Amino acid sequence: MEQLKVGIIGLGRIGKIHAKNLVALADVEVVMASDPDPAARAFAAQLGVVQVSADFDQIFSHPEIKAVIICSPTDTHFECIEKAAAAGQHIFCEKPLDMTVEAIEKIVEIVTQAQVKLQVGFNRRFDVHFARIRSLVEAGAVGDTHILKISSRDPGPPPISYIERSGGLFLDMTIHDFDMARFIVGSEVKEVFAIGRVRVDPAIGEAGDVDTAIVNLTFENGTIATIDNSRKATYGYDQRLEVFGSKGMAHIGNQQADSHTVYNAEGIHQPVLLDFFLERYEQAYRSEMQDFVAAIRGGKPVPVDAHDALMATKIGMAAWQSVRENRPVALSEM
Amino acid sequence: MEQLKVGIIGLGRIGKIHAKNLVALADVEVVMASDPDPAARAFAAQLGVVQVSADFDQIFSHPEIKAVIICSPTDTHFECIEKAAAAGQHIFCEKPLDMTVEAIEKIVEIVTQAQVKLQVGFNRRFDVHFARIRSLVEAGAVGDTHILKISSRDPGPPPISYIERSGGLFLDMTIHDFDMARFIVGSEVKEVFAIGRVRVDPAIGEAGDVDTAIVNLTFENGTIATIDNSRKATYGYDQRLEVFGSKGMAHIGNQQADSHTVYNAEGIHQPVLLDFFLERYEQAYRSEMQDFVAAIRGGKPVPVDAHDALMATKIGMAAWQSVRENRPVALSEM
Amino acid sequence: MEQLKVGIIGLGRIGKIHAKNLVALADVEVVMASDPDPAARAFAAQLGVVQVSADFDQIFSHPEIKAVIICSPTDTHFECIEKAAAAGQHIFCEKPLDMTVEAIEKIVEIVTQAQVKLQVGFNRRFDVHFARIRSLVEAGAVGDTHILKISSRDPGPPPISYIERSGGLFLDMTIHDFDMARFIVGSEVKEVFAIGRVRVDPAIGEAGDVDTAIVNLTFENGTIATIDNSRKATYGYDQRLEVFGSKGMAHIGNQQADSHTVYNAEGIHQPVLLDFFLERYEQAYRSEMQDFVAAIRGGKPVPVDAHDALMATKIGMAAWQSVRENRPVALSEM
Amino acid sequence: MEQLKVGIIGLGRIGKIHAKNLVALADVEVVMASDPDPAARAFAAQLGVVQVSADFDQIFSHPEIKAVIICSPTDTHFECIEKAAAAGQHIFCEKPLDMTVEAIEKIVEIVTQAQVKLQVGFNRRFDVHFARIRSLVEAGAVGDTHILKISSRDPGPPPISYIERSGGLFLDMTIHDFDMARFIVGSEVKEVFAIGRVRVDPAIGEAGDVDTAIVNLTFENGTIATIDNSRKATYGYDQRLEVFGSKGMAHIGNQQADSHTVYNAEGIHQPVLLDFFLERYEQAYRSEMQDFVAAIRGGKPVPVDAHDALMATKIGMAAWQSVRENRPVALSEM
Repeated sequence: MEQLKVGIIGLGRIGKIHAKNLVALADVEVVMASDPDPAARAFAAQLGVVQVSADFDQIFSHPEIKAVIICSPTDTHFECIEKAAAAGQHIFCEKPLDMTVEAIEKIVEIVTQAQVKLQVGFNRRFDVHFARIRSLVEAGAVGDTHILKISSRDPGPPPISYIERSGGLFLDMTIHDFDMARFIVGSEVKEVFAIGRVRVDPAIGEAGDVDTAIVNLTFENGTIATIDNSRKATYGYDQRLEVFGSKGMAHIGNQQADSHTVYNAEGIHQPVLLDFFLERYEQAYRSEMQDFVAAIRGGKPVPVDAHDALMATKIGMAAWQSVRENRPVALSEM
Repeated sequence: MEQLKVGIIGLGRIGKIHAKNLVALADVEVVMASDPDPAARAFAAQLGVVQVSADFDQIFSHPEIKAVIICSPTDTHFECIEKAAAAGQHIFCEKPLDMTVEAIEKIVEIVTQAQVKLQVGFNRRFDVHFARIRSLVEAGAVGDTHILKISSRDPGPPPISYIERSGGLFLDMTIHDFDMARFIVGSEVKEVFAIGRVRVDPAIGEAGDVDTAIVNLTFENGTIATIDNSRKATYGYDQRLEVFGSKGMAHIGNQQADSHTVYNAEGIHQPVLLDFFLERYEQAYRSEMQDFVAAIRGGKPVPVDAHDALMATKIGMAAWQSVRENRPVALSEM
Repeated sequence: MEQLKVGIIGLGRIGKIHAKNLVALADVEVVMASDPDPAARAFAAQLGVVQVSADFDQIFSHPEIKAVIICSPTDTHFECIEKAAAAGQHIFCEKPLDMTVEAIEKIVEIVTQAQVKLQVGFNRRFDVHFARIRSLVEAGAVGDTHILKISSRDPGPPPISYIERSGGLFLDMTIHDFDMARFIVGSEVKEVFAIGRVRVDPAIGEAGDVDTAIVNLTFENGTIATIDNSRKATYGYDQRLEVFGSKGMAHIGNQQADSHTVYNAEGIHQPVLLDFFLERYEQAYRSEMQDFVAAIRGGKPVPVDAHDALMATKIGMAAWQSVRENRPVALSEM
Repeated sequence: MEQLKVGIIGLGRIGKIHAKNLVALADVEVVMASDPDPAARAFAAQLGVVQVSADFDQIFSHPEIKAVIICSPTDTHFECIEKAAAAGQHIFCEKPLDMTVEAIEKIVEIVTQAQVKLQVGFNRRFDVHFARIRSLVEAGAVGDTHILKISSRDPGPPPISYIERSGGLFLDMTIHDFDMARFIVGSEVKEVFAIGRVRVDPAIGEAGDVDTAIVNLTFENGTIATIDNSRKATYGYDQRLEVFGSKGMAHIGNQQADSHTVYNAEGIHQPVLLDFFLERYEQAYRSEMQDFVAAIRGGKPVPVDAHDALMATKIGMAAWQSVRENRPVALSEM
């Protein structure tokens, strides 16, 4: 089987993970990797990527590259997508595609016209546990879905500098839960009501963000959802979901590095949860690359696309407006 | 030790439970029980209650009775409380005290002036599991409370005739969760946002009620809460709570009739949850009577009083208004 | 319904429990209770037992008493059973019936000839959890039984003075597990191999006992079993069982006073197990009295009889012989 | 860093896994793979192994190969080890090293004299869960170890043809548990008592094997152990261990492919266990190769060596003798 030739743009934390996972795929060749940082390029070279460059454009102009993996900063996404689409290259782009609804709508247009695939990095859909819940819902195991609950809490807040550019909690963190909610329920969101608080660190509030939140969603198919978030769970990365319906409930709990239990005079003890997304979603990151490659090879739609990114972003925007105005906000207002 | 002499008013399902639990207490004598239904009176006689009557008033005028247990229909509560207070009898009254905020405010006034104790039947506070969560919160085990989550789902809806007089889901069912939320958080509610849907049975909607709901509460101490309800959980009576804070989380799960597990070729299986409140809160019903008696004997405040009933009712009223107007409603509006 | 009139012989720790449970039964009247200790008799009087006596014989000669509950010291059991049988009284007797196989065989003969029922105090059979496992096995849920595993560990050793007269670990503690094994498997034991060690306290060894043990049983129906015991589990009273067969496995785990979980930076924590048998088997003690009464009223066989006591004792004797001779011992040698 | 050059001998099921895992290691080069089966060699070539051969000897005579991975049939192990040792190559050899104690003793001698490392394929030691239990024991978390329990049950029996040459259950299956027991307890076995039965398939008995067993071990440090095995657990590959001691207990349960739970009117359901060792010990197989390579590079002892293989084999032999003679067998008799 001929190898799919790909280029990687940006070798930060997440770009490195994708690079490793792609290099390990037998049917993929990472032809070129690009990053302005020499250390990042050295990392790629050590993985066996023969061509490295400080200049992203070398990837878009590379005649052999059929697909690009965009892991560069968010404010470069639009330009990269535009150039890749112009070059007829398929695109995997990390979330968020862009910070504005308008830009994402434009991206939808661009990739549609260029007839290239664009997959968005909503990695959690590829986690076997969450994917199984979706399968159960599709198979009717819970009947009609009535209530969806998601708890999604980080082990610690990101740097304030990140928060200042991220779009805030609803766009850098809850956005994953918004996508997950749409994925599990299989319907579109109608309305959003959000409560946001600053409880973890006043500096987060000073940066214009919240760190503790509850967001309710109502769906077109009648399902109602509640999501709760915190920037700081002392016990690790808390990622749970349950979907309740006319026939019953499906639930997925947390994962631990090892699942031992110690019993002693103080009680019964288990270790904390897996620390964060790199550990918790290790398998999901591998699978999302495999599925992106498979979609290109098979000429099939990608499992999560620019429309999904658009909807999640709209929900995030609506959540912010809901907090500002203390009222439910219809998605149609966005 | 002299026995506390009590009278029981109303021997329906819950009155019978209280009667049995009181008869089993060594330091209590059930002097009289009253119910218009001869079968109910026969039940009391069989328990060893010597005096039975069809007429409630015989209890209020009984010279020996120091405390009354009011389990008659809601629309008789006000009158019973008024008469008992006039007779200087301490009062345990089932929830709801009354269907209007005004009447409950008047009740607060009546019992305060009469200097009699009034305990309200929020039985869940007396459940060892929930009580333990409250103790943990008080002891600082979770630090400052940030998020409270309650799932509270019944195994099946009540008759439509009940729903028509009950005040609907927020006042007959969620009211327990509102009280639990106040109990756990230890602070007053500021604002309520509620989403209600009819998903279980259209007849419930025709009766003016909802059967599926999410309610958010914000508290004066900064905690935010989300409660979800359903009138019908196929797997039994679902009663869970978690409270998340700056130091961690405390969680209480469900109880099963027996906790066996069967492993076979189809998977790993456990039995459904305890069927409903009579089974799930059996211990709580016993304990609330003990604590009521202990409060009278010890001259101490009752653990849950008319003010608690008032607040829970106001939250329920606010939840209905929130659903009707699709906006968050401040408790101060009530 | 006429009340069954019973007498209680011996009001030590377990006698008090039975007294309380019997007094609470509507269809039983505790006519007389007997104990040489005035404080014990006062306890009975406070429960409402009108006639108390220091002399056991008053119970056997009481014309109204139809059944006796024997909770006096083990060395009085034989005599009490003999007298009760002679008086035509049905008998509930605490375990062990006696310390010798010969005496128990004689007891079987006595009660058979006198045509009185004799139920033995193997309380665990009445625990809803273990009883459910037996039902599952009977219903074929695990298919043919291949392997039985029991873990049974006390929270702390009894006084040395108790050990010196108890017959040691296999006869005072494992005997419950031997009965449970026979109950679950529904077949007779053929051979016993036991390993005993002194690991908890050298004084236990000096008293001629062991405190840590593994016992294997082989059954006539082909099932093989392994039981492990310790006199001291720091985390509470550990009582678990699993039965594995051709179709799968049924398992019953431990019970906790309350089942909360705390998550914090150190891990995930649950409270220790219920402390000991009085707490863990509270329901079982109630049920065994109800079932004894029901067997008498219904003219049905008691659920656990002198033959069961005989077999459990023989297994215990065989276990001791196995430890002494370090070889498997056939039950037919006993 | 220079790559460690290795050769793989035998590319059956387990050889293929090691080949994949070695190819993925950045600091290892698989120079040659050898198997008589052309399809197996094609598999290796596809992985990128440049040199393949039908002749094992080409690996022993290869001037660049520093270490060999022996996954050929058991009856070739001795010869392969001898040749590799003569060539000064370090050795990883799958279990069992050989079917006789004498041959394994000779192997210990050979590798000692040749001063090459020999690591044995007891993969379970490298599983993070079991390794964590060992760390906890070493750190004193359970105090002095009193009782060890292992349940180890396969999802289905191997072909009769395999059983006829494998040495039977105690040498092909329980041998892993014997090694695990020594690993966890950190002491040598003194005596073995085993019960074996044919309950799964009479054909297994006709082949001279058992399919259902309990094995007790006593250790020099006073710990006693009980292991139970079955060739057929309908619910998947059952691998559990608990170690109980003076301070408490450490326990490791089973792993599932995904950990969802479904609640419905029939009960609460989870999926079956991971199917078998390839899935359950995927991480362990990776880690054992890494640790083998690290031991060679670091000039450190291998984590599990020929002595470990010798002891596990002796225990297995003793178990067979115990079943044949129905008595405890001292390891010193072997």
